[in-house]
Amino acid sequence: MNEPVYQLEHNLGYTFDNKAYLNTALTHRSLGQDNNERLEYLGDALLGFIIAEAIYKLYPKASEGELTRLRATLVKGETLAKLARKLNLGNYIRLGGSELKSGGWRRSSILANAIEALIGAIYLDVGMDICRDTVLKLYGDILEKSTPETLIKDPKTRLQEYLQSLQMDLPEYSVVVERGEAHDKIFTVRCDILAMTISVQAEGKSKRNAEQAAAQLALDTLNI
Amino acid sequence: MNEPVYQLEHNLGYTFDNKAYLNTALTHRSLGQDNNERLEYLGDALLGFIIAEAIYKLYPKASEGELTRLRATLVKGETLAKLARKLNLGNYIRLGGSELKSGGWRRSSILANAIEALIGAIYLDVGMDICRDTVLKLYGDILEKSTPETLIKDPKTRLQEYLQSLQMDLPEYSVVVERGEAHDKIFTVRCDILAMTISVQAEGKSKRNAEQAAAQLALDTLNI
Repeated sequence: MNEPVYQLEHNLGYTFDNKAYLNTALTHRSLGQDNNERLEYLGDALLGFIIAEAIYKLYPKASEGELTRLRATLVKGETLAKLARKLNLGNYIRLGGSELKSGGWRRSSILANAIEALIGAIYLDVGMDICRDTVLKLYGDILEKSTPETLIKDPKTRLQEYLQSLQMDLPEYSVVVERGEAHDKIFTVRCDILAMTISVQAEGKSKRNAEQAAAQLALDTLNI
Repeated sequence: MNEPVYQLEHNLGYTFDNKAYLNTALTHRSLGQDNNERLEYLGDALLGFIIAEAIYKLYPKASEGELTRLRATLVKGETLAKLARKLNLGNYIRLGGSELKSGGWRRSSILANAIEALIGAIYLDVGMDICRDTVLKLYGDILEKSTPETLIKDPKTRLQEYLQSLQMDLPEYSVVVERGEAHDKIFTVRCDILAMTISVQAEGKSKRNAEQAAAQLALDTLNI
């Protein structure tokens, strides 16, 4: 199934000096010891920095909060899997028995991890500058299309930023009750803003959803 | 209160070419617009990478999980505040009215944020290589004393790694009940390992503590 790696290098726009790094980056842990997990760890930290720096420079007026949210969007698994598919990375990943049989090369998590490993491998092969250029070229229009303005803030974030602007403590969220079967749970979450003696409750199908709904209620109460 | 910055530069072992970066890094958001928050964001990502790379090289046999936990220990707020105190950074941070009055320069979170901003400022002033050297020199024996072996794994991590080694799904934790007053809550958490039809419950004074206790019970059940 695996295609020759020079095609991957072509798609990536980078040719490895030391192919051992490339081979390790493409080896899933289901194949044993010499796998891509350490490279993935290095690539994850490196990618986080490369994207942090790129958007820091692109958006000189953006706040820390905006940059943090934008970065999270750009380095989340879903985005990385998209980049991996652009490279046809699934055709080059080497998997062991069970992962191979179950079509693991199509799985987003395996693709996302492999692309982080690939970034770590490029860095070890050539250093920061060319690695950064290669990563930013790979992102291409994904980076250009993602601006702080395209991120609509969720209610929890808006509530937090509002309270911070007043130098108040953050709201406290707590699960009041959780009911229903495992596959069909309903959570009730309370949001307390102690300094304002505001306490509201909302329901949701996950803790996160219920928190967002409670935050929205608090914003409504505050007329924001 | 603020001492001359050349003493800070001396403590840090780095003299800024462009003092504007240094001044911004030392300015807390309580003083207004031109504060250190964007630099803190950049420094946070950069520090994450510098430490990730340093321990990747220091421990060629460490697993991804060990490196991830070690890095988390080395970049957590408490560690950063310790480094900041080593530099006497609190004597150089500029704070606005309310933070100043309440002794904000002693607060660990303000110190930790300022040291991240300082790292971002050094990077913008001089680039990666000297910034990395300065950061690693600042860490000094903290880096040497923190080895993968010094980190005792918590029950949740051990359970997760055990299940991963069997290529099984991760355990699921859910809050079953939460009782007591806000200052004296008791959480009951259930840990389900679906593939093994194991389901155990434990209590704790926080969700995290209850989860760890439930994970320990699951490990006991598995005789691990």
